[in-house]
Amino acid sequence: MASMLDNIRVVLVGTLYTGNVGSSCRAMANMGFRNLVLAAPNLQNGWDEAERMAVHATDILAARREFATFEEAVADCVAVVGTTARGGLYRQHVKAPRDCASEILSLAETGPVALVFGREDKGLLNEEVAQCTHLIRIPVDEGYTSINLSQAVLITCYELFTATGSYQPPHEKAPLAPQAQKMQLMKNWQTMLQDIGFMNEKQTEHMMQGIHRIFSRGVQTRDDAAIMLGVARQALWAHHNPALEGRKPSIG
Amino acid sequence: MASMLDNIRVVLVGTLYTGNVGSSCRAMANMGFRNLVLAAPNLQNGWDEAERMAVHATDILAARREFATFEEAVADCVAVVGTTARGGLYRQHVKAPRDCASEILSLAETGPVALVFGREDKGLLNEEVAQCTHLIRIPVDEGYTSINLSQAVLITCYELFTATGSYQPPHEKAPLAPQAQKMQLMKNWQTMLQDIGFMNEKQTEHMMQGIHRIFSRGVQTRDDAAIMLGVARQALWAHHNPALEGRKPSIG
Repeated sequence: MASMLDNIRVVLVGTLYTGNVGSSCRAMANMGFRNLVLAAPNLQNGWDEAERMAVHATDILAARREFATFEEAVADCVAVVGTTARGGLYRQHVKAPRDCASEILSLAETGPVALVFGREDKGLLNEEVAQCTHLIRIPVDEGYTSINLSQAVLITCYELFTATGSYQPPHEKAPLAPQAQKMQLMKNWQTMLQDIGFMNEKQTEHMMQGIHRIFSRGVQTRDDAAIMLGVARQALWAHHNPALEGRKPSIG
Repeated sequence: MASMLDNIRVVLVGTLYTGNVGSSCRAMANMGFRNLVLAAPNLQNGWDEAERMAVHATDILAARREFATFEEAVADCVAVVGTTARGGLYRQHVKAPRDCASEILSLAETGPVALVFGREDKGLLNEEVAQCTHLIRIPVDEGYTSINLSQAVLITCYELFTATGSYQPPHEKAPLAPQAQKMQLMKNWQTMLQDIGFMNEKQTEHMMQGIHRIFSRGVQTRDDAAIMLGVARQALWAHHNPALEGRKPSIG
């Protein structure tokens, strides 16, 4: 999986601001990318801003490669994936990044792949778009379609990283409550709620449906069930062991 | 659809840097969100940096609301969705934003929903996490899990915006080539390739399989087919109308 992303380079074309280069490094690192290329950079400020924005991804910044032209930056690539916010000439074939992420990963198994991001002000030029084998456009609201350069890098890399399937979404580590424990929980709560006078015999079925609805959503693990079993036991105990006078707490 | 996202507020808790507030405004605008709340801000620099980073989303910045505490900022919300990069106490129930985007949108149809983002340095405190009804963690590479504040805002809003289904991915506007045109294309190319001596009778079946493979991927629309039909016609013409001596171009 790592080698697949290592075969993908982020190519920034004609970038103006070093801060965006640095922010792109951090975004790349967040998503497991290491390979940064600047093509015909047109930087208007110094590298200290880039290092500040890269934070803990200055290694990517330091390992960047620079090429004088777009052509040289992608010459060895089996796929050149351009990003564009605009429609128009040469731009009819764009896909959303999620819709071509798998294809791009497959291509990266066969050779180097370039993800190409244009200038902050003008994006990719027509002659650059014409050299791309794939075009993607990030879904954005029509009211404000101009996305920051490093934000575009982030979303594109995020979609590819997510598509690798290498990220395991966190899940409950605690063992789930077995059915018998859940049934015991309902039984003990019914006993308790009747005992403390929360509901009478006639109201029981209706109220217990509400309790069941709440617990079926909220009580998932053995620990969850143990807590609510403890509450029932303690409430029962408390009802038969009345508090001393003058120690009644207020609930507001 | 718009009203659904309007019911979702981005709540930045204890934010340190105005630049991140501004970048978050732009990210929100890109994804169709308008509603920014600062809870207990702890800003260390001036608002000019925020306005610079918001670019064309300064209206969101100007319309921000501020609350002295996290509790006040989310008091009217039917769901409080916290974001966390860390595991540990109170953080076992996290989901990836894509996996709960639909649920969050459904909740936003019933009342205000808060998307809560913690401090740049410390994230959300345990007592804040404990007040969240949902927790999400953005999938990131284990090598660098700390994501910039506005980048976290962007991905979370992007997943919700994408889940609304309001974005129509661009698609081919040109009409697709009908089968008869494609068959004509193969027939004419076969004639032309034999005529110009690209292949002989014996090689034809094998070569035409290659041409078919290429065209089946590349020739999609009527316009595509018309172009390649024109190439075949012109190549045939050219073979029977030899160029004048001394005008032979080189192909390198």
